[in-house]
Amino acid sequence: MSLSLNQRTTRRWTVAEAVDGCVRHGLEAVGLWRENVAEQGLAESVKLVREAGLRVSSLCRGGFMTAGGLPGDEGRRAFARALDDNRRAIDEAAELGAACLVMVVGGLPGVTPGEPLPAGTADAGGAGGTGDGGVAAGGFSRDLAGARERVAEALAELAPYAGERGVKLALEPLHPVYCPDRAVLSTLGQALDLSLAYPEEQVGVVVDTFHVWWDPRLSEDIARAGRRIASYQVCDYLHPLPADVLLARGMMGDGVIGFPPITKAVLAAGYTGDVEVEIFNADIWAADPDEVVATMKARYEDVVLATG
Amino acid sequence: MSLSLNQRTTRRWTVAEAVDGCVRHGLEAVGLWRENVAEQGLAESVKLVREAGLRVSSLCRGGFMTAGGLPGDEGRRAFARALDDNRRAIDEAAELGAACLVMVVGGLPGVTPGEPLPAGTADAGGAGGTGDGGVAAGGFSRDLAGARERVAEALAELAPYAGERGVKLALEPLHPVYCPDRAVLSTLGQALDLSLAYPEEQVGVVVDTFHVWWDPRLSEDIARAGRRIASYQVCDYLHPLPADVLLARGMMGDGVIGFPPITKAVLAAGYTGDVEVEIFNADIWAADPDEVVATMKARYEDVVLATG
Repeated sequence: MSLSLNQRTTRRWTVAEAVDGCVRHGLEAVGLWRENVAEQGLAESVKLVREAGLRVSSLCRGGFMTAGGLPGDEGRRAFARALDDNRRAIDEAAELGAACLVMVVGGLPGVTPGEPLPAGTADAGGAGGTGDGGVAAGGFSRDLAGARERVAEALAELAPYAGERGVKLALEPLHPVYCPDRAVLSTLGQALDLSLAYPEEQVGVVVDTFHVWWDPRLSEDIARAGRRIASYQVCDYLHPLPADVLLARGMMGDGVIGFPPITKAVLAAGYTGDVEVEIFNADIWAADPDEVVATMKARYEDVVLATG
Repeated sequence: MSLSLNQRTTRRWTVAEAVDGCVRHGLEAVGLWRENVAEQGLAESVKLVREAGLRVSSLCRGGFMTAGGLPGDEGRRAFARALDDNRRAIDEAAELGAACLVMVVGGLPGVTPGEPLPAGTADAGGAGGTGDGGVAAGGFSRDLAGARERVAEALAELAPYAGERGVKLALEPLHPVYCPDRAVLSTLGQALDLSLAYPEEQVGVVVDTFHVWWDPRLSEDIARAGRRIASYQVCDYLHPLPADVLLARGMMGDGVIGFPPITKAVLAAGYTGDVEVEIFNADIWAADPDEVVATMKARYEDVVLATG
């Protein structure tokens, strides 16, 4: 395993700056984000990582493909848009030679990430009408099982497309705190079960310590995943959570996660890819990126690899 | 199934007031909290519920028995204190004739509920030293697997004690967001597996919609639990979370949970007990308790039982 910088950890860096930073700090791989790649330009980004001799450990991210659970034309259009966008993401991942395209599958249909629930659904009047999984006007769906079916349907469309382009889709289970708005995939076991219908080179899973550290089945599901593990991402889980739960990710050692058992299990499962550090954190984003990378390297050795 | 008021929903009410409120609103059962019972007096509380003809659907709560994971004498003393306190809780549940004693098992050893992590453990210096599950001075343990073993050990002591007194311990899995500080039991399946070593009348599990709604294995684990379900508690899961995640519980219909599939599964599992509404929520605590109970009754019918 080898350390990789997910560029979101050094959020102010462009692709060019992140590539330079990786080279300067002796890292062999970088995880890129689609919006940064778009700003840099896809062709230019490809050129930068190739000339620097870096591996692209992942492209973040595809997914958000549950809105098909909205009723009627709204749902059909949303599903089609999601497939189109994911095909573009797959094309970009292929161009970049990314080891995988990380898939954050989306939350309940109609719930926008980080936004309050749509008006008119969460009051008394709407409660009965939507409790059975139906959707109030302009609203969202509480049909969690249905949302999960939409993910499986989208995957059936996208996995062959990815396979033809040599791209591996990496299904990322997110901490259950993100189930309403970001990912109805909530456990590694669930993501793994979904992947099994496809060849290993088409669909894998992400083990992100932040999202899965609490899971009582983690060890056995990591072992069961084996070579399905497409990405091992590490960061810590802060406690208490900050007001914006999206920013609850911390530098390894700053939170509650005991990394060694997880790292050992991932190694024992046969994972030999890069280990990405991906941290969303206001303090880390405000700090000097070079200092962040230096700390990240030290903590990776001291905390993540401290399996002895 | 019959509706029960968990008195924490009407937080300002004493035991006497909650009992009166249940009678006034035609409820047949009440869930009580130990601190309220202590304030009212145990004997007086017993008298009040008996004279009112109410069932005590649960006593909240025992548990917090992971601190034995701290090293040396500190751990041994904490474990002994936890057992003593839980034996007292069992005695109180027996006196009250409670249907179960709800067990919130505790988080990582040394982490106080709702408090920041202990100083001196979450910095760089302490990270390596505690990453393997060890404990920094004055600190906490990141050994999650070990904390879970402490729960099993405590249960082995307490289950027979409860059994002799006719009390059922109800293991409550809490949402993974509470894993650091309140409960290392994070899924219904995990709680159920832990219960299986004991007779059904000694150890059961709680299905609380707030905590388990996201679980992809929920339906099958409810079915597997069958008559092990000691309590069905309902409230909604608010989104986004409030700054204090403890107060993220909402009135049924105000959040993201689709209740009917869960209610159907609990009924199909053979549950015939009371359904407690337990809501921690600043707005609901500020409202007129009688209005809260009236709303609760209406939402129970319209949202929780809307299985048609």
